[in-house]
Amino acid sequence: MSENSVSTPGWHAAWLPDDAFAPLGRRVVAVVAGPGAGPLVATVVREVRTAAARFGGRILLADAASAGGEARPDLVLALEPGAGLPAEGYAVVRTDGTTRVTTSDDAGLLYGLFHVVRLGEGAFDDALAPSRHAPAHAVRMLDHWDNVDVHDVMGQVERGYAGGSIFYAEGALRADLTRVEAYARLLAASGVNRVAVNNVNVHRTEARLLTDRLGDVVRLADAFRPWGIRVHLAVSFAAPMTLGGLDTCDPLDPAVAAWWAEATARVYAAIPDFGGYVVKADSEGQPGPFAYGRDHADGANVLARALSPHGGRVHWRAFVYNHHQDWRDRKTDRARAAYDHFTPLDGKFDENVVVQVKFGPLDFQVREPVSPVLAAMPRTHLALELQVTQEYTGQQKHVYYLPEQWSEVLGWEPWGNGRTVAGRDGVARDVVAVSNVGDDRFWTGHPLAQANLYGFGRLAWDPTLSPSDLLDEWVGLTFPGADPRVRDILRDLMLGSRATYEQYTAPLGVCFMVGPGHYGPGVDFYEYSPWGTYHFADRDGIGVDRTRTAGTGYSGQYPEPWATTYESLDTCPDELLLFFHHVPYTHVLRSGKTVVQHVYDTHTDGAARTEVMARRWEDADRLVDAELFERVRELLAEQVRSAGEWRDQVRTYFWRHSGVPDERGGPLY
Amino acid sequence: MSENSVSTPGWHAAWLPDDAFAPLGRRVVAVVAGPGAGPLVATVVREVRTAAARFGGRILLADAASAGGEARPDLVLALEPGAGLPAEGYAVVRTDGTTRVTTSDDAGLLYGLFHVVRLGEGAFDDALAPSRHAPAHAVRMLDHWDNVDVHDVMGQVERGYAGGSIFYAEGALRADLTRVEAYARLLAASGVNRVAVNNVNVHRTEARLLTDRLGDVVRLADAFRPWGIRVHLAVSFAAPMTLGGLDTCDPLDPAVAAWWAEATARVYAAIPDFGGYVVKADSEGQPGPFAYGRDHADGANVLARALSPHGGRVHWRAFVYNHHQDWRDRKTDRARAAYDHFTPLDGKFDENVVVQVKFGPLDFQVREPVSPVLAAMPRTHLALELQVTQEYTGQQKHVYYLPEQWSEVLGWEPWGNGRTVAGRDGVARDVVAVSNVGDDRFWTGHPLAQANLYGFGRLAWDPTLSPSDLLDEWVGLTFPGADPRVRDILRDLMLGSRATYEQYTAPLGVCFMVGPGHYGPGVDFYEYSPWGTYHFADRDGIGVDRTRTAGTGYSGQYPEPWATTYESLDTCPDELLLFFHHVPYTHVLRSGKTVVQHVYDTHTDGAARTEVMARRWEDADRLVDAELFERVRELLAEQVRSAGEWRDQVRTYFWRHSGVPDERGGPLY
Repeated sequence: MSENSVSTPGWHAAWLPDDAFAPLGRRVVAVVAGPGAGPLVATVVREVRTAAARFGGRILLADAASAGGEARPDLVLALEPGAGLPAEGYAVVRTDGTTRVTTSDDAGLLYGLFHVVRLGEGAFDDALAPSRHAPAHAVRMLDHWDNVDVHDVMGQVERGYAGGSIFYAEGALRADLTRVEAYARLLAASGVNRVAVNNVNVHRTEARLLTDRLGDVVRLADAFRPWGIRVHLAVSFAAPMTLGGLDTCDPLDPAVAAWWAEATARVYAAIPDFGGYVVKADSEGQPGPFAYGRDHADGANVLARALSPHGGRVHWRAFVYNHHQDWRDRKTDRARAAYDHFTPLDGKFDENVVVQVKFGPLDFQVREPVSPVLAAMPRTHLALELQVTQEYTGQQKHVYYLPEQWSEVLGWEPWGNGRTVAGRDGVARDVVAVSNVGDDRFWTGHPLAQANLYGFGRLAWDPTLSPSDLLDEWVGLTFPGADPRVRDILRDLMLGSRATYEQYTAPLGVCFMVGPGHYGPGVDFYEYSPWGTYHFADRDGIGVDRTRTAGTGYSGQYPEPWATTYESLDTCPDELLLFFHHVPYTHVLRSGKTVVQHVYDTHTDGAARTEVMARRWEDADRLVDAELFERVRELLAEQVRSAGEWRDQVRTYFWRHSGVPDERGGPLY
Repeated sequence: MSENSVSTPGWHAAWLPDDAFAPLGRRVVAVVAGPGAGPLVATVVREVRTAAARFGGRILLADAASAGGEARPDLVLALEPGAGLPAEGYAVVRTDGTTRVTTSDDAGLLYGLFHVVRLGEGAFDDALAPSRHAPAHAVRMLDHWDNVDVHDVMGQVERGYAGGSIFYAEGALRADLTRVEAYARLLAASGVNRVAVNNVNVHRTEARLLTDRLGDVVRLADAFRPWGIRVHLAVSFAAPMTLGGLDTCDPLDPAVAAWWAEATARVYAAIPDFGGYVVKADSEGQPGPFAYGRDHADGANVLARALSPHGGRVHWRAFVYNHHQDWRDRKTDRARAAYDHFTPLDGKFDENVVVQVKFGPLDFQVREPVSPVLAAMPRTHLALELQVTQEYTGQQKHVYYLPEQWSEVLGWEPWGNGRTVAGRDGVARDVVAVSNVGDDRFWTGHPLAQANLYGFGRLAWDPTLSPSDLLDEWVGLTFPGADPRVRDILRDLMLGSRATYEQYTAPLGVCFMVGPGHYGPGVDFYEYSPWGTYHFADRDGIGVDRTRTAGTGYSGQYPEPWATTYESLDTCPDELLLFFHHVPYTHVLRSGKTVVQHVYDTHTDGAARTEVMARRWEDADRLVDAELFERVRELLAEQVRSAGEWRDQVRTYFWRHSGVPDERGGPLY
């Protein structure tokens, strides 16, 4: 158990406990940067100095010319503008007992420092192989769905499961932003370089962050800037009316364009490195260009043109669908909506418009096919949107290691030809995710959900990292010097956790089946709703026919090979069967089991697995911080309870509908 | 259209528009009462004087000895303490062109006055037959579920569908109680004589009405007193701890008893005619005696003994059940709970304890059997609890004329021998209901829901009144002088409205099937919940087996003939079939239809009926107050929409489960 695993009385140190800096802090470290080399150099110097002071090492400061003249450093962090490394990138090489990190910009210096921290003692091992690092995505962004005010139903952080906002309290920006600075440091260490600081559902108070509350954004930008993170703002498309007093927000109206230009100029006057806007328009009740007969390109471009002179960008969300759908209508398909709305506009968006696409066609489900929009807008700057906050994935009460799912998405090949969703040549140029952080002591409610936040930043930097390696990396940082059994226990709990959750919740890609608030089972809760998320179960079968032949035609939104693969019952992957097909309960899967027996078995097994997880965690008693241990223990108990409820409700639902008994004889009610 | 139908700018006059006083106000009225005859005499005098001033009549005041000496009155309202009339009662006789109302107490004088108002011109018709009137129930009480504070989810009035509280606003008692006085007057005219002024779920602020906020109750009592209405208070069983600082609220602890005695003495020092307490204990999370291993008699009696010296009473609600039930468990039956909890305690309650029993075993459903508790506690003072607020009956958006349902309940014969639930010899000594009033202009949201409030008071006074006559009475008062077509239109809309609502909602007594907030369909919404309200539908059938032979045994809580009637499929009334039995969809009803075809037909027909209602209302255009007309029109449109949604969801649910097509060929999805 590490004394330093919790480094302040206020919050958990997450993946930056003091001890993680011990290997570095014990040594002689030279920071080499020319004058005017960028503001992040000061951050690096401060980090190294603090570590040295704590662990007895030394820091040497020099400009590039005199480096190494005074003493032989164990580590050199060298900013060499002429070194030719890509933006934010760095090279690492060890020679003659010195590890040298070279970069061409100050951000690279900071990322290089955290790379050394990650390596731990390995950074000073003469066997260290030379390596070069650069982010696969220039923009690695977290969207906060934080509100300034507390919403009666949604709380302060929409879909937040870790307490209130770390930014706002009692209707205003917090006076003390120390924790925001600590957060920025954690994000920098994970690789994140952009943060949107308010909810995309922009309520009245939050809208004013753009105007008379802009001072709050200035202070947040000041807190994030030393960590290489630029701040973005979610804005309301109706702002010209609600804030500007105009009688329209028609994007083609010159007065509207002028209003946005002026408002934006004021923002940049206050925050020169402001990142830009995030907009949810014409979606779930938010205002947008449709009211004026304009399209999303018109809407996005008016903002883009206000931002363009200042180097800013607009993130325009593609999450647009009819949320007043008629459940009686089986031809309208919410899964089709983003594609139908956006692909006709390909090529019409300005260069600094980023169309931000949720990874799946529905809404951050446990199992969806990857959105076909990602393959269908070659002339548009696309961002992939993930969700770190566990809205549909256990709400930070269930262990759900998200990198296992993200890796599938990031590495998916739309054309089956090696080109993937993410990566340097990926169809998505940026990667964005909704944050899972709140003012909870452990940041994320469930302490193990920290791995998801960490993993997001790391995968946005390098989508090819394996979830398993990433987990080890996170464990090494978060529990430095811990008993090796801790790693094994965490691997047992977290690897496969997505599969376990999938087993006991909605089966075979059918999606939803959640109750109010999206936690816990509610098999029919959305079945007769206006939300467009149905499974169409009856006494004979279940699933959504999305084929071109007989269904909604959604499968046709995919390029080959997927259009054909998904279309046919013979080739559609089992795990997506009910997303694409309506089948009898007796349909036989590739496993040889019927659909209904598969449902019985997976729910029994998945829930049983949570009990194994809970027992396994007991082995961590006294090996980790006691408070963390207890928190995880309590949450595992809730996961076991909830998984049992899922098991019984889903199994019983299928039993009552199908009348087919469980071959294994498990209880049905 | 009556000019006076809306008599103040602030709110609708309901059943006391000025014009209703015209027949009386045009005439010579003598009020005859001896000195010191009671405080309500002044109220009567003021009413008569106001009416005379408005309509040109005269008021004569005299003591009993000199009555009639001065001029020949058309109406004499005479308080004669020696006349031997029952409490609150009055006799009416017309002789020689004078109508004489005689009473033995001042309350009777007030009720007699309102009787004359109800009669209208008929009060002065020489053909008026002599009659005697006295209330069937001494206590006719309305419970307000109003909170001082506004609750995030429940609003200010729990289960309130007519705006905020007329008592409280912005966290305190309203400064201006004029509207409360107008409300008291309306209640007096309906026959209500008790009001509990706060929610039975007693939250923090409201608990303090008993102590440091007692001044608020004093002011409310002052507003109600001139109308013969005594005020009651809902209290928290935990008050000795939360307000008194004791470390227990064990009812057998002498310190607890002493605390209640002192608190109660303080109440009576401030409000000498205070009515008593209302308590929801050990129910849905409210504190109670179970925590100390005590029973409900222990709990009720400690309060009763504090109230007894002052003539007060405690209304102890029998609405006690396990709201953490396991849906898997088909043996536990929420319907059994009140009986199982309370009947063993029969005879153990103090005399001034009133056990308040909801009319049915579940929760104010459209169709439930009458609670067997009412027949099973002969040594206990029982009150029947009804619900005027339309929680499960359309939330004052649907027309639902409740007296149609109440008459069935009030006149139900537990032993089939003529003895009924209500009435002078009824098993329930008092009648209580939850109010439907809020600060809405029309008091009740839906203007036609005023008839429910009025009807409650009238039926509590005389449970034998027919709903049809009562409706005419209400129409006559509310729309005085209106075109006769108004009465016909309202009869078309309101008579049968309960049957219509029943047709398109949960069928055959199966109950619930409501969505969140208890409005609109949610066939499975409660099916896997902890609330104990299930229908157990599967592919073969539906319903709850509550028989003694094979089910929960609930049918055995009834005396004969009902125990046998409900037990057998051959004799169980169709409308309660699914409350008592689980049957196949193909079970044939007495109508000759199968269950599933009955469901198809009733839902089609019920929803179609709402369209007829909405069209019929158009005939009232220009015949009634324009604002009232529009409000009803808007609400009927919502009723039509909602009924269509109910129709389609319930029909489709049965179709998907049964696979049986609709013989009539209506749409199924």
